Amino acid sequence: MAKAAVLVEFGQPLVVREFPTHFELAPGEAVVEIEMAGICGTDVHIWRGELPVPLPLILGHEAVGRLRALGPGVTHDWTGQPIQPGDRVTWASSVVCGECYYCRIKPQPTRCLHRKAYGISYNANEPPHLRGGYAEQIYLRAGTALFKLPDDIPTAAVVGAGCGLATAVHGLERCPVHWGEAVVVQGTGPVGLAAIALARISGASRIIAIGGPSHRLELAKHFGADTLIDVATTTAEERRRWVAQESGGFGADVVIECAGVPDAVAEGIELCRDGGRYLVLGQYANTGATQLNPHWITRKQLELRGSWGFEPRHLWRALTLLRDPYWQQRFASEITHRFPLEQVNLALETVSKWESGKSVLVPG
Amino acid sequence: MAKAAVLVEFGQPLVVREFPTHFELAPGEAVVEIEMAGICGTDVHIWRGELPVPLPLILGHEAVGRLRALGPGVTHDWTGQPIQPGDRVTWASSVVCGECYYCRIKPQPTRCLHRKAYGISYNANEPPHLRGGYAEQIYLRAGTALFKLPDDIPTAAVVGAGCGLATAVHGLERCPVHWGEAVVVQGTGPVGLAAIALARISGASRIIAIGGPSHRLELAKHFGADTLIDVATTTAEERRRWVAQESGGFGADVVIECAGVPDAVAEGIELCRDGGRYLVLGQYANTGATQLNPHWITRKQLELRGSWGFEPRHLWRALTLLRDPYWQQRFASEITHRFPLEQVNLALETVSKWESGKSVLVPG
Amino acid sequence: MAKAAVLVEFGQPLVVREFPTHFELAPGEAVVEIEMAGICGTDVHIWRGELPVPLPLILGHEAVGRLRALGPGVTHDWTGQPIQPGDRVTWASSVVCGECYYCRIKPQPTRCLHRKAYGISYNANEPPHLRGGYAEQIYLRAGTALFKLPDDIPTAAVVGAGCGLATAVHGLERCPVHWGEAVVVQGTGPVGLAAIALARISGASRIIAIGGPSHRLELAKHFGADTLIDVATTTAEERRRWVAQESGGFGADVVIECAGVPDAVAEGIELCRDGGRYLVLGQYANTGATQLNPHWITRKQLELRGSWGFEPRHLWRALTLLRDPYWQQRFASEITHRFPLEQVNLALETVSKWESGKSVLVPG
Amino acid sequence: MAKAAVLVEFGQPLVVREFPTHFELAPGEAVVEIEMAGICGTDVHIWRGELPVPLPLILGHEAVGRLRALGPGVTHDWTGQPIQPGDRVTWASSVVCGECYYCRIKPQPTRCLHRKAYGISYNANEPPHLRGGYAEQIYLRAGTALFKLPDDIPTAAVVGAGCGLATAVHGLERCPVHWGEAVVVQGTGPVGLAAIALARISGASRIIAIGGPSHRLELAKHFGADTLIDVATTTAEERRRWVAQESGGFGADVVIECAGVPDAVAEGIELCRDGGRYLVLGQYANTGATQLNPHWITRKQLELRGSWGFEPRHLWRALTLLRDPYWQQRFASEITHRFPLEQVNLALETVSKWESGKSVLVPG
Repeated sequence: MAKAAVLVEFGQPLVVREFPTHFELAPGEAVVEIEMAGICGTDVHIWRGELPVPLPLILGHEAVGRLRALGPGVTHDWTGQPIQPGDRVTWASSVVCGECYYCRIKPQPTRCLHRKAYGISYNANEPPHLRGGYAEQIYLRAGTALFKLPDDIPTAAVVGAGCGLATAVHGLERCPVHWGEAVVVQGTGPVGLAAIALARISGASRIIAIGGPSHRLELAKHFGADTLIDVATTTAEERRRWVAQESGGFGADVVIECAGVPDAVAEGIELCRDGGRYLVLGQYANTGATQLNPHWITRKQLELRGSWGFEPRHLWRALTLLRDPYWQQRFASEITHRFPLEQVNLALETVSKWESGKSVLVPG
Repeated sequence: MAKAAVLVEFGQPLVVREFPTHFELAPGEAVVEIEMAGICGTDVHIWRGELPVPLPLILGHEAVGRLRALGPGVTHDWTGQPIQPGDRVTWASSVVCGECYYCRIKPQPTRCLHRKAYGISYNANEPPHLRGGYAEQIYLRAGTALFKLPDDIPTAAVVGAGCGLATAVHGLERCPVHWGEAVVVQGTGPVGLAAIALARISGASRIIAIGGPSHRLELAKHFGADTLIDVATTTAEERRRWVAQESGGFGADVVIECAGVPDAVAEGIELCRDGGRYLVLGQYANTGATQLNPHWITRKQLELRGSWGFEPRHLWRALTLLRDPYWQQRFASEITHRFPLEQVNLALETVSKWESGKSVLVPG
Repeated sequence: MAKAAVLVEFGQPLVVREFPTHFELAPGEAVVEIEMAGICGTDVHIWRGELPVPLPLILGHEAVGRLRALGPGVTHDWTGQPIQPGDRVTWASSVVCGECYYCRIKPQPTRCLHRKAYGISYNANEPPHLRGGYAEQIYLRAGTALFKLPDDIPTAAVVGAGCGLATAVHGLERCPVHWGEAVVVQGTGPVGLAAIALARISGASRIIAIGGPSHRLELAKHFGADTLIDVATTTAEERRRWVAQESGGFGADVVIECAGVPDAVAEGIELCRDGGRYLVLGQYANTGATQLNPHWITRKQLELRGSWGFEPRHLWRALTLLRDPYWQQRFASEITHRFPLEQVNLALETVSKWESGKSVLVPG
Repeated sequence: MAKAAVLVEFGQPLVVREFPTHFELAPGEAVVEIEMAGICGTDVHIWRGELPVPLPLILGHEAVGRLRALGPGVTHDWTGQPIQPGDRVTWASSVVCGECYYCRIKPQPTRCLHRKAYGISYNANEPPHLRGGYAEQIYLRAGTALFKLPDDIPTAAVVGAGCGLATAVHGLERCPVHWGEAVVVQGTGPVGLAAIALARISGASRIIAIGGPSHRLELAKHFGADTLIDVATTTAEERRRWVAQESGGFGADVVIECAGVPDAVAEGIELCRDGGRYLVLGQYANTGATQLNPHWITRKQLELRGSWGFEPRHLWRALTLLRDPYWQQRFASEITHRFPLEQVNLALETVSKWESGKSVLVPG
């Protein structure tokens, strides 16, 4: 049996339950003993019932663990490295069908019509039940992109980076930052910090982070932001003027939205210079229409790009970045709070109050 | 002396006045006797006071005429063709400074900080007064891109195409349509019709025009639209389903907004397939914020692009298209109403009521 | 038993042999009764021993046939259409591994490290033997992209288009032609004709075909070329001047090499205008180094792009084009010679002497 | 009178002559007292007669000096900063016409049909004679892009960067390096070192410099190269294997040719991974055709891009980089030899023997 924290009813405390672990592994499958699981901001939204998910649900879509058993044919990880029980691994949170309109014809694999994500899409009542990271073990489906972690990458760096880094890798692939460009990053949560890191290594001449609270702005500075703007103590007009002043007078070359608040998009459009680019990376929740002036898209001849989730190759790129001790230290430093599985509700509360950098669960 | 129709007060009838024409031409300048001037939808917005312009103002930013006199050094047109008085010409409506941040550093020449457009930016009280197309003559500044018209391009084709074709050339340069793609064009005014033409010659597999009234939808068909959707007799949800059905089930590969109505942008985002492209080409008026759901930009990983006005080379490309009798016929056929200069107010009214295809002024 | 034409020794006549057909189909497999198989120019190179292939080999990588039997789990074609025995189908000639460096990490699927092509990569001695199109039947591996053909697409259009159309679809995806551009196509074989077709529907203002012999230049005209240059009766310098004259004075906006002759590349670079694009699409054989002046790449600031083979989605796009009767007629008209399987050597000879448009085998 | 070093006959020593300096400045013109002029590798080619230039010629196309006098209307530099006599400046070496096919229609401004470069294109017999950097003074034409140097940029950094940095800025704009990519730079002269710098700040994961001699490889390391390969002590096959080993097994994501030797291009193509990009930046001399295998362009589906010279905005970007003390130090450190104008022949000889990092002339 293995313990897991289950969301039974939206807004109610998660319940720790035990699940059977005697399932035989089919070809391509694997089972992993979880060492550390991240709590993502999306988990808070799910907990509150703001995303369409099945209940009961074992949350958790970012984790590191050790392979306990491998199904027939699972001999190598996604990159071709040999794997065996005991190896430390992470994995892409989503599995796609490979056959639908978006997998094949207009290839947009992250928009696969049958994509399912661990910790989000699986009903915990259905065997093998353990399909989320808030647990002692997780059963991985055939087709899951597994990555054996080299010894020089600490677990905390991988979970600290979480899904935010791979999401930002995908986003900045669709909307690259070029050397010398002035960049605004809206939001200083995990995606925002990862975007700051990638803008930094892409050679941004100036990175302006808009976010908060202050301990997160400190992290933004640590990740490479040159200018810190606290969203709680400034007006939109003050921010617009500040950004213009720091970026040649007319606005940023690139703005990256990682705030997750719909209003941020209306503001971000105004922070771009004419002909600038705007990556809308954080609008994961559908909270309906908001106020936005499309005139500026035409008039400023802007380029806006969206990006959803990530593919395994983006996680691969994220892991190559985490080979660098400089970035390991930073991403690991996001983790300020560690909780045992039993304190999952305290952990969620900490995240929802923005009290932590990043909170993680350490089962066992 | 030369007559011109002057906007003296917003919302009031234009007044035909006479202006002196004895000005000596400085180097680079030219004066043109206007043969035909188009009435653009933007002129109606200006007339109503919805755009910031100086008063009194001679309207008119799309016209064809004959060179009456050339200033020192004006011996060739923009393409290098020799020119002389008597030649039939058209010209780019805007002149840029060539020196500012947007002309030089982040080259976005249509966003020049000192750009001025004939028929929009010049006070008619200031010599040489005649800086708009609703007139018998127009004085062109040094730096104006003049194009000598080959004999095989009829005047009506050039004015019928108006600023809409060059605007669409610019837009589709920023957001090209590739062969085999399903395209939605929102709006069947002059920009929309031009976008249909360009999507057609770019090899769109299917063009769905959303617009009206019916005589404009007929034009859309004539320009190459495969499917006509009357915006007045359908709901947004009906249009969304219709577009999906005609474009592989999931929405259009490319949507081109030429409607000029802010709501069209919220709708257009929903008409794109995931990973699709959206050209926001028609939001010329700033009517403030509107309701729009940015969640879809992230979730559908869309690409939105704006485009403002055009550069001389886009007008050059437009004129190359008008060498083709097939397109000459179509663009000339937009002109359904011709008025003498004295009936300018009737002409404006006809345009504002959507009664005409395109209305033009024929001075003299 | 089923008959197939086998290449036993390079340069020697192919031998028609019988092979057993009693193999049980594994999951994902299918067997097809061939109705028509195309003879590609590459087959002549293989026959002559100019490509590294296993012997004995059943040639043929472009064909149409009827499904005879389907292995377990094969219920739908690549696009999701239900399929059953008796359905007329075509298929992508290559199968990739989906797991290697080029399938996953730097996604360049046509460069899969373990890619195998029907008619090229399979030893006929190894069961199930029948892995080429010059045969009465072909056994298709799991993972083959099958396409059920709609009734409105004639077999002759599909085989006439052959691998050339899908190859050109891939090439022009990497190097698109935009409306109004002047295009040179070097070579008037099947790839060249397909490139002319795609340049035409992409809105090229002028298409200059360089090739021969005269019956192929006639086909080029039928496919949409405006200017025909016979490579046998002109010098390189004459061609350069002719192309410049037909394309604004300075060379073509886009040059597409489909000639397969190394010298064509040196010439093609000179046919581009400065800042132009050059698609090197036809250099399938490795005939070693040739004379080429790289100075022009720097000086003319050219963009050169290569493209190899195609992915299933390119064949999908090719088939969408073949829904159009206009293009069906043209691609079918390439087929000027039909041979029974027993006359395969006469057929190869006809192709190698450039006597046919396209030659095909019609077994049975 | 002002002294200048004049190339009178190819291959012969330059002659220091005096020229009159009393010319009245026309509108837009300026005269500069030169403080330091760089000796570019191209100057050696010109000296040897390998480029088509007029004689007699005052060499020198990269320099810094102080404004001595300004013609009417010259009140601001290219960026809009006010300027006056005494200000320290540099300038773009070329002036374009702004009117030709390549300036206007297919905008490729560096390929302007009437482009002229200081130190290259002007006959020293024609007034105002002083049109090169190897001189005490230089007369700049109207239309020259002047840049006032901020006090925090040392002269040695600007001349050390020379034309190589702006050339590399342009090249990497056409062929950007993205974070995490493995990059090969062929050549460790000024363009190669600048390319290493830009690849570094663009986030290259690994930079492999191929060049020599050893003091230049040391510079390459100082500029950010991770791996140094001496071209003189390795074979092409050894380099190919070494590069593959350092870049994921299959070759570099991006190769940048800055070697100036035609053979380097044939080798560079083999150093790219399949689907990789190759920037051909150094083929400034036309030494005729060389041996090159175009098969690899098709088979590896490569992307090759050329880039010629630079526009003023690339020099602007280069100067923004030189605001950073880190890069100032590096570019200034290229200058290992300083010569008075009278020792110009010794200086040229030093450069031609690859004995210096960079040699400069310091008049007066």
